[in-house]
Amino acid sequence: MNKHATLEKIVSWAKRRGFVFQTSSIYGGLANNYDYGPYGTLLKNNIQNFWWKTFVQEREDIVGLDGAIITQADVWKASGHVDNFNDPLVDDKVNRKRYRADHLIEEWNKKNDVDLNVEAMSVDEMTTYIKENKILSPDGNEITDARTFGLMFETFIGATSSLEDGKVYLRPETAQSIFANFKNVIDTMRVKVPFGIAQVGKAFRNEITKGQFIFRTIETEQMEIEYFISPQEDWEKLYAEWQDEMLSFYKSITHDAESDLRYRKHDDEELSHYSKQTYDVEYEFDFGFKEVAGFAHRGDFDLSQHKEASKQKLEYRDPYTNEVYVPHVLEPSFGLARAVLVAMYSAYTEEDLGEGKSRVVMKFPKHIAPVTAAIFPLQKDEKLQTMAHDVYLNLRGKFDCEFDNSGNIGKMYRRQDEIGTPFCIVVDHDSIDDNCVTIRDRDTMEQERVAIDDLEQWISSNI
Amino acid sequence: MNKHATLEKIVSWAKRRGFVFQTSSIYGGLANNYDYGPYGTLLKNNIQNFWWKTFVQEREDIVGLDGAIITQADVWKASGHVDNFNDPLVDDKVNRKRYRADHLIEEWNKKNDVDLNVEAMSVDEMTTYIKENKILSPDGNEITDARTFGLMFETFIGATSSLEDGKVYLRPETAQSIFANFKNVIDTMRVKVPFGIAQVGKAFRNEITKGQFIFRTIETEQMEIEYFISPQEDWEKLYAEWQDEMLSFYKSITHDAESDLRYRKHDDEELSHYSKQTYDVEYEFDFGFKEVAGFAHRGDFDLSQHKEASKQKLEYRDPYTNEVYVPHVLEPSFGLARAVLVAMYSAYTEEDLGEGKSRVVMKFPKHIAPVTAAIFPLQKDEKLQTMAHDVYLNLRGKFDCEFDNSGNIGKMYRRQDEIGTPFCIVVDHDSIDDNCVTIRDRDTMEQERVAIDDLEQWISSNI
Repeated sequence: MNKHATLEKIVSWAKRRGFVFQTSSIYGGLANNYDYGPYGTLLKNNIQNFWWKTFVQEREDIVGLDGAIITQADVWKASGHVDNFNDPLVDDKVNRKRYRADHLIEEWNKKNDVDLNVEAMSVDEMTTYIKENKILSPDGNEITDARTFGLMFETFIGATSSLEDGKVYLRPETAQSIFANFKNVIDTMRVKVPFGIAQVGKAFRNEITKGQFIFRTIETEQMEIEYFISPQEDWEKLYAEWQDEMLSFYKSITHDAESDLRYRKHDDEELSHYSKQTYDVEYEFDFGFKEVAGFAHRGDFDLSQHKEASKQKLEYRDPYTNEVYVPHVLEPSFGLARAVLVAMYSAYTEEDLGEGKSRVVMKFPKHIAPVTAAIFPLQKDEKLQTMAHDVYLNLRGKFDCEFDNSGNIGKMYRRQDEIGTPFCIVVDHDSIDDNCVTIRDRDTMEQERVAIDDLEQWISSNI
Repeated sequence: MNKHATLEKIVSWAKRRGFVFQTSSIYGGLANNYDYGPYGTLLKNNIQNFWWKTFVQEREDIVGLDGAIITQADVWKASGHVDNFNDPLVDDKVNRKRYRADHLIEEWNKKNDVDLNVEAMSVDEMTTYIKENKILSPDGNEITDARTFGLMFETFIGATSSLEDGKVYLRPETAQSIFANFKNVIDTMRVKVPFGIAQVGKAFRNEITKGQFIFRTIETEQMEIEYFISPQEDWEKLYAEWQDEMLSFYKSITHDAESDLRYRKHDDEELSHYSKQTYDVEYEFDFGFKEVAGFAHRGDFDLSQHKEASKQKLEYRDPYTNEVYVPHVLEPSFGLARAVLVAMYSAYTEEDLGEGKSRVVMKFPKHIAPVTAAIFPLQKDEKLQTMAHDVYLNLRGKFDCEFDNSGNIGKMYRRQDEIGTPFCIVVDHDSIDDNCVTIRDRDTMEQERVAIDDLEQWISSNI
């Protein structure tokens, strides 16, 4: 665990430095939704683009897709979400505040040193457990029986005249957009099993959250692949390869997080009924080891459900053997906001510089840092400013760059350290003669003299 | 107008070639929402990234933002959307089908050669006009009086126990996410008026559409900038500069569309009450000149409304004069799907190649083409295949590439022409000796011999 980073520090830093703001904050704010500020947007985009490059552009066996958020109800009836996708909720009997039953039980267990897998309990078992142990709300009041509450956001399309006809759902996961387009993709693309369809997009879950910042929000971005394989395939080998790639992706977007990342296998009670095997990638936050990516073998559950419900041929014909089958599916699934949060947690560093000085520095891997290079003149001097600004103008279309001429070099360094800019490029009086600049490294704070003409090349080969 | 392209041809091509599919199509499909297939996703991403590079990365005065879709109701009360954002609807009295009153009036006017600005009519005026002219539904039945129908999708957050408390809206425009974060941005970033905040994101409108494919959908992606200026600024000069940049963006993503793009000024009746001036960028489709980008001077309407409603200081203090004011706003606003549609329309070309042969070729500007280079062996020959595949492996992380070894060179060219791939790279028997390949240009079909070692450089400098 990164001992520097706590939830409180990360939330405060993210707000102060323009990374993440609470949604609708000028009106009090939604408790469980967030907006990304200028630097947060850049960081998130960089992680998303790196994911896409890694899993789509650089792979021959994966194509992309971008499905709509508002989807027909039939999709979610077939997938089982209308019937089964819900949370166990209870209300405080006095003030009507609403809670997740499993969360209250978990907290009670923690306080009372009880070890129990709450995820495996049914709603009735929770109610019984709450009564037997007289578990109360956080405000000390009695709570209602646990009941299921549908996790999908529903809304209505106005173009239809009856409410029931117009009922649609905001997709609670991106996966079903892929399954619903399986036939479209095999009909139009030259894909051969094994192949994958990848998607980055938003999904919505009407959840009660624990207030763990962007770890769990009602609106979330998923980066998912459905990887279609033959039922005869040696899936365990492929599964192991994917596990390596998923972990390796996480290592590439974190700083020194090797020991904070681990795989955890779902036990039989936790495993979804259709899944042959599921592992979570977990990261150790200050609030515990938590899931930051999931990897399920979904079998042919989804395609078979949609095949049955839609009466469409969701099948694959092997071009060599002419065998026709419903493929099985491996599902590497990442939460974009969780990847962003892990990148933030692992990067956060407080350094004592001696002589009573200290700094907060975000050690983002260089290729995902929101700003790659900040350029400034050493002093407020017109000639230096013009020269520094020209350097900025030459670099900004190639990298995300900032120009700062506020004058105080120490302050400018601190500011860039706090947003994690790997390179600060300083134009000084010598630059006028030697046409070189000083590049200061964020992590080592060492300085290197580089010719202005070589800057683009230097940065490219150093990120 | 591009005489080759019609709505029917584009829809059919887009489906056949893996660009755009109807959402939930295996279940009949939503009439007004679409999923992007593999090539459509790449094309859309390229246009979006080019927009971001042009208007954010390459500009010193614009920062990015990424706001949530689910937003607190207060935002939309203050912005005026709860009260005023609605459409005039009528129902067919017999079969209950629902229509936009203004659309029925427009169609009746067209048939009867009446020239009238329907956009300027009130709901009551529409009802009167319908009655006076005995306008019927498309099925020939009487229709109801026109009434207003709210265009925002509403849904409910389950964490609150009363329905009214939990009511939230899917944002109908991205703009308000920016205004609601104005204070967050000026508090955390070193921005100075004039500056802009840019955002690409989804917005949702519960609209009845005319079935013009991705031109109008209930779910849409906007690429918007709110550009904040001083009330004393010479806004007409800035406005003219922005107009040039908006048009220039559209020219960069279209093929030979100069004469199909125009600006149209909103007349006084059409102009929003808060706007000083609005122009639309229009493109000539086969269904007429239609808005593909909008550019409004919004004054200080939005910030003032939110300032009043939230009691927060949505103001700017000029660092030189210390003057405090609510900035005025220029709003360059693009619809991403419309940009994609215009790129498709302008690129679509049917060419007669003589000798009874023809081809469909998508002349996308090279930098936005979904696939930059396709690599194939001239024949099905193991040595050529391996060599071609190695060429592919070397290029694919740098550009979006495809490898095709299906063997029929003519078919492979046609396929790449139809998805608009600018460069087909062919490995032939001479390649084994000279280590060169033939690059065939999509538009001219001319061929050039290039050394394999120079390929990356050659492609970079040709896009």
